[in-house]
Amino acid sequence: MIPVKGYAAQSPTTDLAPWNFERREVGPHDVQFDIQFCGVCHSDLHQIKNDWFPGIFPMVPGHEIVGRVVKVGSHVNKFKVGDLAGTGCLVDSCRTCENCRNDLEQYCLNGNSQTYNGLEQDKKTPTYGGYSSSIVVHEDFVLHISDKLNLAAVAPLLCAGITTYSPLRHWKVGKGHKLAVLGLGGLGHMGVKFGVAFGAEVTVLSTSPSKEADAKKLGAHNFVVTTDAEQVKAAKGTFDFILDTVSADHDLNMYLRMLKTDGTHICVGAPDKPATVSAFSLMAGRKSLAASGIGGLAETQEMLDYCAENNIVSDIEMIDIKDIHTAYDRMLKGDVRYRFVIDMATL
Amino acid sequence: MIPVKGYAAQSPTTDLAPWNFERREVGPHDVQFDIQFCGVCHSDLHQIKNDWFPGIFPMVPGHEIVGRVVKVGSHVNKFKVGDLAGTGCLVDSCRTCENCRNDLEQYCLNGNSQTYNGLEQDKKTPTYGGYSSSIVVHEDFVLHISDKLNLAAVAPLLCAGITTYSPLRHWKVGKGHKLAVLGLGGLGHMGVKFGVAFGAEVTVLSTSPSKEADAKKLGAHNFVVTTDAEQVKAAKGTFDFILDTVSADHDLNMYLRMLKTDGTHICVGAPDKPATVSAFSLMAGRKSLAASGIGGLAETQEMLDYCAENNIVSDIEMIDIKDIHTAYDRMLKGDVRYRFVIDMATL
Repeated sequence: MIPVKGYAAQSPTTDLAPWNFERREVGPHDVQFDIQFCGVCHSDLHQIKNDWFPGIFPMVPGHEIVGRVVKVGSHVNKFKVGDLAGTGCLVDSCRTCENCRNDLEQYCLNGNSQTYNGLEQDKKTPTYGGYSSSIVVHEDFVLHISDKLNLAAVAPLLCAGITTYSPLRHWKVGKGHKLAVLGLGGLGHMGVKFGVAFGAEVTVLSTSPSKEADAKKLGAHNFVVTTDAEQVKAAKGTFDFILDTVSADHDLNMYLRMLKTDGTHICVGAPDKPATVSAFSLMAGRKSLAASGIGGLAETQEMLDYCAENNIVSDIEMIDIKDIHTAYDRMLKGDVRYRFVIDMATL
Repeated sequence: MIPVKGYAAQSPTTDLAPWNFERREVGPHDVQFDIQFCGVCHSDLHQIKNDWFPGIFPMVPGHEIVGRVVKVGSHVNKFKVGDLAGTGCLVDSCRTCENCRNDLEQYCLNGNSQTYNGLEQDKKTPTYGGYSSSIVVHEDFVLHISDKLNLAAVAPLLCAGITTYSPLRHWKVGKGHKLAVLGLGGLGHMGVKFGVAFGAEVTVLSTSPSKEADAKKLGAHNFVVTTDAEQVKAAKGTFDFILDTVSADHDLNMYLRMLKTDGTHICVGAPDKPATVSAFSLMAGRKSLAASGIGGLAETQEMLDYCAENNIVSDIEMIDIKDIHTAYDRMLKGDVRYRFVIDMATL
């Protein structure tokens, strides 16, 4: 076994603190890479607090992981020592179901292996995430990272990036479309960047008027303050798509009224409480409420390659791992522009 | 003005009773037809009881209207005296907005004129529906009815028919698809007939085991009793589409679990209370919750023509208008196979 250092929550009521644990030996198809940077996702906090479901403790969060390969198994041919590498929200899946065969490992019908707070495919061994010094992952779930981009700023692409890229591609959002991005946080700012890159006219919907200048800097064409009744009224029936990145509870009916006929509201955030949706909100214009989760491995690689070609990364604030709870507090207040990334050298 | 007889609710707390009122004179583009049959829709009851919103009283319900033309305006060229004619849920719309120009009058952005409990395009004159002896409608909102079909059984096509036909066409449901029809009432039984006609494998989802034989007779291939936990479990992840025809409150999350990845749950019934939907119910398989309302005029004519070619009508029980409240009581209990139609000769 390989000894590694990490930060773990020992229970849903305790803070993250240093914890030493072991990774499996590098198997024939495994890649081991030392973690240089790990992004901080809202879901890290949801999961260590058991907001969604009872978690597996000790829990080492982190699923926006980048670093450099230090060892490869005997049968690995996709990576060699010294390569940049990344891992997102998944470290394995059944590989046999219809969805896995269609490159939709994120929707594996037999249960995929989440990078942390999950189980390996033996359905027994817990997984531990990227708030740690090194990780061992099957090569099929390791992504290639271009050296053209700032590595720390690539980390959030592994979750915030693919979570917004995938639905925009799936629903073919692009030129001629009016896209609203609801919430300008880690996911939202990536949604703006991709929406603009794909040619859509992008409007940011936010409760914070202070974010307008930033939204425009990110490339957004318009900005609507959602606490301003006049602006909300003017936005009625104007969007083809709303990409809803908000993880806090919010009233969807107000946003559904902003969609055009046949418009689609796509949730990529996951509030604790279920949404309350009137049939009339959808029926008045044959609208759809959908949701999308991360992306498959092939699509994640496609996204990383697209980002390298188009010089797209996340806007980040680098933190020391000892400041993780201060970062969570600021994240909850929306006080981060736009993703915290942990410098793992501080471990 | 043209004196007509009808049945009206004078207030949301009074029963329907005979009421004499007047229709406008036949204008240059109007068609007047004497009503022979009018279908009874669940929404008639919702509206006379103010379940959805405060109604306009006196209210003459009825929007599944068929009969024979008795007078046409000087500029009418689509109809002549003696023709069969029908009118559904709409008697006018703005005709100028993007949706009206795209044959989506049901989603008119300036407010269409519902056949009853609505206002004409002057936004002042109340509309009165088909529980009456005769009606005057602009020719563009009058449909041609084939004499090949049983006229009484055609009436429900004007709402129950188009409400199920339109979403199945919009989402291109057909060969190779597994379609579930939730609820086997007026809408549901038409959903089964159209789903089968379009080539889908159709499963009826119902709380009533007693409806299985009927479902099969209507052409359904499978039947799931939704109060049977084993059958519900077996249905998990099996449908491409669910056509949800239920107007009573029900838990959508259970049905969303029955969808395949990328499946769509389409609501055509309108419960009083909003639905409670977990983001996870949609995210686990990139599912969509949508809703659809009736259809445009061109599509309604297309549906009627399709029915004439394919010998599709509604299964009906004919009633005298004096028995309308008994019919409502039976409808609420699901005790109708499958649509009540009023013989207007009994007025």
